[in-house]
Amino acid sequence: MITLYDLVFDRDVRPSPYCWRTKLALKHKGLAWRDEPMGFTEKQKIAFAQSQTVPVMHDGTEVAKDSWAIALHLDKAYPDKPLFPDDPARAHARFVNGWADAAIHSLIFPMVVGDMMEAVRPQDRDYVVESRGKRIGTKDFAGFQRKARETGVTAFRQALEPARRVLREQPFLSGRAPAYADYILFGSFLWPHTFARNLELLDRDDVIWSWRERMLDLFDGFGRKARTAAE
Amino acid sequence: MITLYDLVFDRDVRPSPYCWRTKLALKHKGLAWRDEPMGFTEKQKIAFAQSQTVPVMHDGTEVAKDSWAIALHLDKAYPDKPLFPDDPARAHARFVNGWADAAIHSLIFPMVVGDMMEAVRPQDRDYVVESRGKRIGTKDFAGFQRKARETGVTAFRQALEPARRVLREQPFLSGRAPAYADYILFGSFLWPHTFARNLELLDRDDVIWSWRERMLDLFDGFGRKARTAAE
Repeated sequence: MITLYDLVFDRDVRPSPYCWRTKLALKHKGLAWRDEPMGFTEKQKIAFAQSQTVPVMHDGTEVAKDSWAIALHLDKAYPDKPLFPDDPARAHARFVNGWADAAIHSLIFPMVVGDMMEAVRPQDRDYVVESRGKRIGTKDFAGFQRKARETGVTAFRQALEPARRVLREQPFLSGRAPAYADYILFGSFLWPHTFARNLELLDRDDVIWSWRERMLDLFDGFGRKARTAAE
Repeated sequence: MITLYDLVFDRDVRPSPYCWRTKLALKHKGLAWRDEPMGFTEKQKIAFAQSQTVPVMHDGTEVAKDSWAIALHLDKAYPDKPLFPDDPARAHARFVNGWADAAIHSLIFPMVVGDMMEAVRPQDRDYVVESRGKRIGTKDFAGFQRKARETGVTAFRQALEPARRVLREQPFLSGRAPAYADYILFGSFLWPHTFARNLELLDRDDVIWSWRERMLDLFDGFGRKARTAAE
């Protein structure tokens, strides 16, 4: 039995792009799991894994932490329907993984940090205000977010150029069918999707828009059914 | 017989990162070619291809332009020693290609534009001063370059993070052996290497440094033997 520790906001919203990677990987393999929501101030729940961050997975007697390590674990433990069909696919996903973490999330975060303060569970707010306030150097989260969005959407669309070039040539980042590289970037979109207000990151004419629609449809609309703070 | 049109600076220096991709691809396949240097003001040489930029390739009766299209042509015309062993490898290379063009070259260019003015052929200087001056909004190239280097090296090293993560796990971006994804990024390094002065883009402790050394050794030291403006 697989247990997945998943970050939770107020109203049972699940924002974490890293946890989405894992949930989509589990769906890809057709594996069921027990869901264990964890708020920012409940890190004792994952202390057993010596981790400060989710996703953390308990799979039988095995513990895996960090979304990349979890993906590797899943392909090893459940070789059917591989996330990484071969070494080049794994290199591709590893590259996309680092790119999303370093170049994409850093552009999304400033544009959603204000909404994040409204969306977290009330009992987690002080913690998030402190930690994120330190990161951005101010506690005027709404003002910071407003300013970031002035130039941020354009910069974000430019940063997506590598993905755009691939998606002009093939329906998914991974090829003819979606695999882990797609789950990584899709998770980056589900993050703001679950709680950010009045933020459209893509233009309708963008090939990435159409790809995102295909991704939202996957697994019987798994991503499309994600609870949002607006509900 | 293959003819490759390759950008040339003064002293027969060959800086173009896009042309390096093609030259390394030809080396990968063990193909010989006829070299045709082209200065910035000799674009009539490639007018037959309806292109304003190099690389342009004449291969028998076929004409290919744009480094990516040339790589696809080479794998089709010469299937031995593929640049893209399978679809995931091609998706990986396509992604790295867009990433280098969009995220890497834009960070290198401001740090080398001053040296570029010194390194081009005297008869091309007016053209380059005009076109690059328009791009950066000033003709104080040395001052612009100096300022760009103050923060540029740090930003460049951060931007390399996706490649770094892959290279921590495997010797080449493409896997156990180098292929087109590696030639793309290596071409980006050969560009400043051929003419930029007093610019060290990497730290010796960086896994990317070691990878670059391996790349410099490839094909009997093909990259290491590249002529530089300092010679």
